[in-house]
Amino acid sequence: MLRNTNVHISFPAVCFVWQTAMIILFGIFIRYNEESDPHWVEHKKANNLSDLDNDFYFRYPSFQDVHVMIFIGFGFLMTFLKRYSFGAVGFNFLIAAFGIQWALLMQGWFHSLDAEGKIRIGVENLINADFCVASCLIAYGAVLGKVSNVQLLVLTLFGVTLFAVDEYIIVSVIHARDAGGSMSIHTFGAYYGLCISWMLYRPNLNQSSRLQGSVYHSDVFAMIGTLFLWMFWPSFNSAISDHGDGQHRAVINTYLALASTVLTCMAISSLFNKHGKLDMVHIQNSTLAGGVAVGTAAEFMLMPYGALIVGFCCGIISTLGYIYLTPFMEKHLKIQDTCGIHNLHAMPGLIGGIVGAITAASASKSVYGEEGLINTFDFEGKFKDVVPTQQGGYQAAGLCVALCFGVGGGILVGCILRLPIWGDPADDNCFNDEAYWEVRDEEAASPVLHYNNHMQNKDV
Amino acid sequence: MLRNTNVHISFPAVCFVWQTAMIILFGIFIRYNEESDPHWVEHKKANNLSDLDNDFYFRYPSFQDVHVMIFIGFGFLMTFLKRYSFGAVGFNFLIAAFGIQWALLMQGWFHSLDAEGKIRIGVENLINADFCVASCLIAYGAVLGKVSNVQLLVLTLFGVTLFAVDEYIIVSVIHARDAGGSMSIHTFGAYYGLCISWMLYRPNLNQSSRLQGSVYHSDVFAMIGTLFLWMFWPSFNSAISDHGDGQHRAVINTYLALASTVLTCMAISSLFNKHGKLDMVHIQNSTLAGGVAVGTAAEFMLMPYGALIVGFCCGIISTLGYIYLTPFMEKHLKIQDTCGIHNLHAMPGLIGGIVGAITAASASKSVYGEEGLINTFDFEGKFKDVVPTQQGGYQAAGLCVALCFGVGGGILVGCILRLPIWGDPADDNCFNDEAYWEVRDEEAASPVLHYNNHMQNKDV
Amino acid sequence: MLRNTNVHISFPAVCFVWQTAMIILFGIFIRYNEESDPHWVEHKKANNLSDLDNDFYFRYPSFQDVHVMIFIGFGFLMTFLKRYSFGAVGFNFLIAAFGIQWALLMQGWFHSLDAEGKIRIGVENLINADFCVASCLIAYGAVLGKVSNVQLLVLTLFGVTLFAVDEYIIVSVIHARDAGGSMSIHTFGAYYGLCISWMLYRPNLNQSSRLQGSVYHSDVFAMIGTLFLWMFWPSFNSAISDHGDGQHRAVINTYLALASTVLTCMAISSLFNKHGKLDMVHIQNSTLAGGVAVGTAAEFMLMPYGALIVGFCCGIISTLGYIYLTPFMEKHLKIQDTCGIHNLHAMPGLIGGIVGAITAASASKSVYGEEGLINTFDFEGKFKDVVPTQQGGYQAAGLCVALCFGVGGGILVGCILRLPIWGDPADDNCFNDEAYWEVRDEEAASPVLHYNNHMQNKDV
Repeated sequence: MLRNTNVHISFPAVCFVWQTAMIILFGIFIRYNEESDPHWVEHKKANNLSDLDNDFYFRYPSFQDVHVMIFIGFGFLMTFLKRYSFGAVGFNFLIAAFGIQWALLMQGWFHSLDAEGKIRIGVENLINADFCVASCLIAYGAVLGKVSNVQLLVLTLFGVTLFAVDEYIIVSVIHARDAGGSMSIHTFGAYYGLCISWMLYRPNLNQSSRLQGSVYHSDVFAMIGTLFLWMFWPSFNSAISDHGDGQHRAVINTYLALASTVLTCMAISSLFNKHGKLDMVHIQNSTLAGGVAVGTAAEFMLMPYGALIVGFCCGIISTLGYIYLTPFMEKHLKIQDTCGIHNLHAMPGLIGGIVGAITAASASKSVYGEEGLINTFDFEGKFKDVVPTQQGGYQAAGLCVALCFGVGGGILVGCILRLPIWGDPADDNCFNDEAYWEVRDEEAASPVLHYNNHMQNKDV
Repeated sequence: MLRNTNVHISFPAVCFVWQTAMIILFGIFIRYNEESDPHWVEHKKANNLSDLDNDFYFRYPSFQDVHVMIFIGFGFLMTFLKRYSFGAVGFNFLIAAFGIQWALLMQGWFHSLDAEGKIRIGVENLINADFCVASCLIAYGAVLGKVSNVQLLVLTLFGVTLFAVDEYIIVSVIHARDAGGSMSIHTFGAYYGLCISWMLYRPNLNQSSRLQGSVYHSDVFAMIGTLFLWMFWPSFNSAISDHGDGQHRAVINTYLALASTVLTCMAISSLFNKHGKLDMVHIQNSTLAGGVAVGTAAEFMLMPYGALIVGFCCGIISTLGYIYLTPFMEKHLKIQDTCGIHNLHAMPGLIGGIVGAITAASASKSVYGEEGLINTFDFEGKFKDVVPTQQGGYQAAGLCVALCFGVGGGILVGCILRLPIWGDPADDNCFNDEAYWEVRDEEAASPVLHYNNHMQNKDV
Repeated sequence: MLRNTNVHISFPAVCFVWQTAMIILFGIFIRYNEESDPHWVEHKKANNLSDLDNDFYFRYPSFQDVHVMIFIGFGFLMTFLKRYSFGAVGFNFLIAAFGIQWALLMQGWFHSLDAEGKIRIGVENLINADFCVASCLIAYGAVLGKVSNVQLLVLTLFGVTLFAVDEYIIVSVIHARDAGGSMSIHTFGAYYGLCISWMLYRPNLNQSSRLQGSVYHSDVFAMIGTLFLWMFWPSFNSAISDHGDGQHRAVINTYLALASTVLTCMAISSLFNKHGKLDMVHIQNSTLAGGVAVGTAAEFMLMPYGALIVGFCCGIISTLGYIYLTPFMEKHLKIQDTCGIHNLHAMPGLIGGIVGAITAASASKSVYGEEGLINTFDFEGKFKDVVPTQQGGYQAAGLCVALCFGVGGGILVGCILRLPIWGDPADDNCFNDEAYWEVRDEEAASPVLHYNNHMQNKDV
């Protein structure tokens, strides 16, 4: 009962149509901004600036780190399955490459449209586009191995669209601060993915159980992803913070939260194993939870010990999630979450939103200084009379919006993806690169599968 | 009929002689430039500069990204063969480490020689040296697995020398702009490698066909190379652009061209496979073609949609090249191109040169601004009267020079490398690390080869 | 005779106790420094500074490179063993994540304590914390595969403590300069690890010899570590150098020394192999020796050819160390050095200290300029009357201190680690991830071991 996974026509068609649409829309809307336009040399002289005042020099190193997280970090983190490494790293590549283009347009329409109706882009837009696709890559983690590449393009198109609206409401309408995206990226992305996975529930997925695990080297590959995410997370949380002390503080908080998470993650992993052994699944994922959870508050005065506490708690909660919650959700809630994004992104994202609300609500002039408070929370223009307790409320409202968009959007897109036209694999063919990739060494190079198949045949 | 691959004496001898020569020549010629010399503190005060005006802070992040591309990017991209990963990453390391030293000298003699006959080096020279060896690493891609390490050192010595002359003519004599090196790096390097491969044609290479393919994990290793090249390509194309808007714009153009390439590459890969499956060879290579092709024009006003169009076309052409052209060239032109550099570097490099010429020829004061035009195209000194259409001609002339140097140099060096003194492997021993590396797990760890050998023996 | 490697209670207990202690101590002591505090906006205006004067923009790119070296570089370098990759990369992660927290405290108490008894941290402290754990990771290389995770935490706690005292004496008391840490990081760390390994000598370690080697892909994984260390070493040696020419020069010297090392390392590796073949062990390790050895002198006027000479010598010495010294030390000195840190860190570290002393002693106003000399050697305050020859003596004294701390500390900590309470593996269970990790594919995925075990059983 093999379903037809032949996307011979549909996949190229979608790619060409969408890429052509991108070219046309970019032609109409996208232009260089002041700092990437050749007229900048005049602007520089007129305003007595130095080349270094170009935002490029403030943001570019962080941008490249974020770029590595998106393509290597997320891509390799998902290579842990024994026979889905091509799909992990390859479809991650596809989603991100398509998503960043669409994100530049969607975010541009909401945030960077000028009087002439043009979107002016610079390095900060590139970072934001990378952030936007991060939410789609998180969602991919929930459905890894169970969907076709065409479905992933649809997931991305809607995901980016929803993200842009969601982010606009959170940041511009509600005026919540969310530098590292605990709410807009992680909470939204995770619930978006989980709800899609719920809508695509496969009762007979255990027919692919022979493939739903790791081999020794696939676990080492996944650690490449883990470590690049872990190392560059300080750049992620600081990439679009305020110049100066804002970026500096966001880096320190993230660095500390992540360090703390590693210890409690490993402690719980060992404690709940009967021989005290560590589990690579936990190390690969839960060590990152602290970075998610300080996302919103990273640029606030969370204090170094506060960052450690957040990391401490998230390491515990996330690892326990892998041990108890993931099996529970699969069995009782019909949510099959391949990578455990509920433990790595959803719960820490919610914690991050709450930590952000509390930290904002308890801000004071004595701690931030008068100008520092205005600067950090952007209490300017029509928000100049906001007080920290109000801001705490705005943060909480932002979290609710992210949650609603994630759940609502996920259900909607999940329904669309249930249509029987997308070429998704059969239940006994999930987690298998051979469905969508030319794999040349089917038998020889894969003694595991060969062995397993052999054993299976024997059993029958 | 095993040829003697024993380079026991020749390889160490060449290494020691050349490294000793480097020390002597560096002693005579190379000195720190003003910004890396301790007297800079005086210069800084005299000119009322800040530490940040040191070029180090403009270039260092880009330099490190380029460095990663050279050593990890090119190195891992070539690990795709099932039993040539040591050679791929190890000889890449050797070529680059030797080449950058020789490049500092060669490029220094042409570009940085001061009145006292000393070459003054700083971070920009390090970037240029990395660029220079990139051309030799591209050439290595064509002969991967078929030459000895001694031959590679010879290839590098001549390659760097030719590159430096070629670059001097293109940039300084002809006054073509080539920030990302579509012409001087990619076109030159690719034709240099292809012509060497042509001169070293092996009619019986199919005797090594059991080794001329990938295994599952070697394809994943290669993706590390692909992704680091892809992610850091914006740094490559902007590393030596003008400070300020030049670097900024080069990043945006490269980012967009690469994103577009991914989609058309995957579309073509799927479309030309009878089951619609993707081929890792295409994903590993053709996704990068857009970065090559915007190299020259990256700092020009290519416009965001223009970058997308360039990427769109290159993704198609490069992937079709792998499908049709590589087999054709091997069969009819006697050019065996292991990594398919013709598709990844030669064709996109030519396209890049042409795109650069057109973009330059169509430049105008209305688009760039008066100062912007001078700034971008360096219309200063003896070139102050050049107009854009002329500049377009210079660009085209530059492309021709690169092509001639590549072809001529490749034929010349190919002849030298045909001498029977270099310890290259026999036709049935190509693509095999065991020729030049201690491989400890010959049988046990390599079920594939074992299996294949077993099957072969059976067949006989 | 399997020892009890069950750390079910002890490991989580240690993690929780120490992480809790960190939170309490951070709560009492650690605060943001001026540049990461929201009051910085006021300070900036008062002093007429720009955002770019925040040290963040001088140091952050280097910090991220160092961070990659610590987590990816050291972690993957040690994955070369066929069945200890989880332990290599996972315990490296554990050591580093714990160590950086303890280092921020220890180094803070010695260097950054303000009048109120608070430690003020910024990006430079994060770099120094990373440097500090580097010494513990070097030490881990000597005992890789032979100790439990609890022992590693103890090793780290003491290692960081000793490092902080050692560094304080070298840098602040003696006033030796050690930008890249040849003395304080490499010499100290290596002798610390070697002496621990000596105290933990296992006469029957050959019972694990089936596991004490690499397989093909584990060697490729290790090259990821090697290359990231190699590429980012210029950032390591320049990360805390003086702004401006100091960082610039440190990068150039390190870049050149490393390039030179690669050639002589490969030459010796080939020369001492009877078939002229290269050995991956040498390439993975000895190519890095030049970076270690220019650590101290990187910011001095070593001159480009001087850097090449240092690299030239270290490539030879380090590779010969692997060929002759490591077996000798194991057999006659009872020091089992899994990764050969004596060749990669101890000897090059000593060379680095000596090179630093000579370069400092021969400094002159004619070469550095008057201000340059003061600037480079920090001849200010109570050290304003120091002359270069004296400074040379200080450097030599610093080297002796590092050596004493390494040897003394290693013997002390080695004694503690000999207590039979730490859950270390039995002699026939070393280099085996199954002792501390859930490994799922014990038989199937590991044909090597399976094959070996099979053969062993047969033999018996």
